[in-house]
Amino acid sequence: MAAEMAEQPDVLRNLIARRRDIVDGVRSLAADRIRGVILVARGSSDHAAVYGRYAIEASSGIPVSLAAPSLHTLYDISFRCPDYLAVAISQSGRTPEIVTVLNRLAKAGARSVAITNEPSSPLGTTAQATIPLGAGEERAVPATKTFTSQIAALAFVAEALGHADWHAPEWERIPGLVSDVLADPEPARAAAAGLRQEDGLFVVGRGYLYGAALEIALKLKETSSVLAEGYSAADLRHGPFGVVQKDFPVLAMSVPGPMAADMDELAGWLRSERGARVLRMAPDSGAELPLPSGAPENLAPIVAAARGQQLARELALSRDMDPDTPQGLTKVTPTT
Amino acid sequence: MAAEMAEQPDVLRNLIARRRDIVDGVRSLAADRIRGVILVARGSSDHAAVYGRYAIEASSGIPVSLAAPSLHTLYDISFRCPDYLAVAISQSGRTPEIVTVLNRLAKAGARSVAITNEPSSPLGTTAQATIPLGAGEERAVPATKTFTSQIAALAFVAEALGHADWHAPEWERIPGLVSDVLADPEPARAAAAGLRQEDGLFVVGRGYLYGAALEIALKLKETSSVLAEGYSAADLRHGPFGVVQKDFPVLAMSVPGPMAADMDELAGWLRSERGARVLRMAPDSGAELPLPSGAPENLAPIVAAARGQQLARELALSRDMDPDTPQGLTKVTPTT
Repeated sequence: MAAEMAEQPDVLRNLIARRRDIVDGVRSLAADRIRGVILVARGSSDHAAVYGRYAIEASSGIPVSLAAPSLHTLYDISFRCPDYLAVAISQSGRTPEIVTVLNRLAKAGARSVAITNEPSSPLGTTAQATIPLGAGEERAVPATKTFTSQIAALAFVAEALGHADWHAPEWERIPGLVSDVLADPEPARAAAAGLRQEDGLFVVGRGYLYGAALEIALKLKETSSVLAEGYSAADLRHGPFGVVQKDFPVLAMSVPGPMAADMDELAGWLRSERGARVLRMAPDSGAELPLPSGAPENLAPIVAAARGQQLARELALSRDMDPDTPQGLTKVTPTT
Repeated sequence: MAAEMAEQPDVLRNLIARRRDIVDGVRSLAADRIRGVILVARGSSDHAAVYGRYAIEASSGIPVSLAAPSLHTLYDISFRCPDYLAVAISQSGRTPEIVTVLNRLAKAGARSVAITNEPSSPLGTTAQATIPLGAGEERAVPATKTFTSQIAALAFVAEALGHADWHAPEWERIPGLVSDVLADPEPARAAAAGLRQEDGLFVVGRGYLYGAALEIALKLKETSSVLAEGYSAADLRHGPFGVVQKDFPVLAMSVPGPMAADMDELAGWLRSERGARVLRMAPDSGAELPLPSGAPENLAPIVAAARGQQLARELALSRDMDPDTPQGLTKVTPTT
């Protein structure tokens, strides 16, 4: 896991170098008359898809649906989706249900894109356009470099469908910011030490960071068997905070932008009214899990995900668990 | 909470009696040229919306998106959604962000429907068509009768948009099946006793039952401060089951239909390979949480939700907590 985390700056640099080509490729397939987008994914890839839905709706104003695969694989529903773009996201390109759903959406009229590490996989060869992540084989079970490169690829899809407000220099900074996080493991180690005895926690983001919050929660579950649940700040207010008793840990993710005031208000309230132990992840040297500054809000999930991976790995190590091969987990999950 | 749970058969009976009128009303607004559906909700209502997405996609083949409200309320995105139907679901009709999102989607071209207990609320008066639930005031904080009636209302929307495979006699049986569950609290009491010391559990469903699994997990959190997380059977296989160690409790929901084999396989595997303590909720007298038989799979979530409410209430009582007014929770959550 550490080896693959360390590859992320290079993987991202190579992918970002292909940004214009990828944007042009998606645009040539989907520039006109797209009325809706369907993202098809499971697990970590589905958390990247949650980021993708924010990025795509923000850039294009086109509504995005996250597919419910069982409707296709178990319930045999006839879809009608002409003028839709379907984007499937799978590390291996071999999860049967993802391939099935993309195929069925294409037959129902959608144009199809695959985002995968394996362009020669069943998924890569079935789509009209394929975005190879070029992340290289992922050997550790918890996906790391695949997730951050999926975020970048989905950002490029968003740019292709509309008008993204980022520019090349902002993208070029991202690999270096990820390097900065990885070169500085001490804050994650200290936070992990504080979480070593905990059975559960919440990981809270909002907007562009919501998908990263879900992913960090999953990484914590996978590596450390801790019951970490990801939430949006708004959803947490609708009941689940009933779980937050004195000293319950909450990882609160915040970056400057429209979501910051809301997250900071929630974090302050959880601390003062519920007695929560709030760990902040933010571009702020006073945060327990500091992020380097310099990433715009809509690209910050890449940097934040790296900090979260680090926390998950350190928590596993602090619990004498092996973060690379969590008990019973396998790399390709054959859900159907 | 018990009083409102007990009102459910009557509330459902009254709502089901209006089924044809509600279906016709939605049809007159949305019979033609709907290319996509957007559901707008938070909290329990959002779990009803998860059911709604399965019901609507299954009946109509029209892709359904669950709105990300922050894109409208914080990020000020310009949407384009002509030929879409937007359906907002809110008990009180007064959660500001839900009203804002429905208004913005309508301005972006969508036709609009509100499902609410308060037709004279800001939400009820802003929509082109309003489906009053008629559930009456909900005094306990954890929503019960509102949730089950929202499921019914969303089923009617699904029927209006396509071809539902249920008939009047199946609907007419539902209130009685809910009565049967409520008249038989012993299994929930026994299951609650077994969960009294637990810090966390998973509630797992799939397909039509997935929204009910999410809702039961929320009810358990709200009433009993237990870290209950809802999952689809497929998502659980993609990493989260790393949390399932020996004796970890998993509530596995299953009803006859296309999802049953998948759920039963997962439950057996969690028991044999991970040592999980599986509690089954199923129409099977041998299940720890038996359901009465007689509900088709796509209406069974109403009956299953009642069993889950009962479990949440009994768990709170077994922990000397007050299920009616969980500490710090309020009825209308003013998220923006």
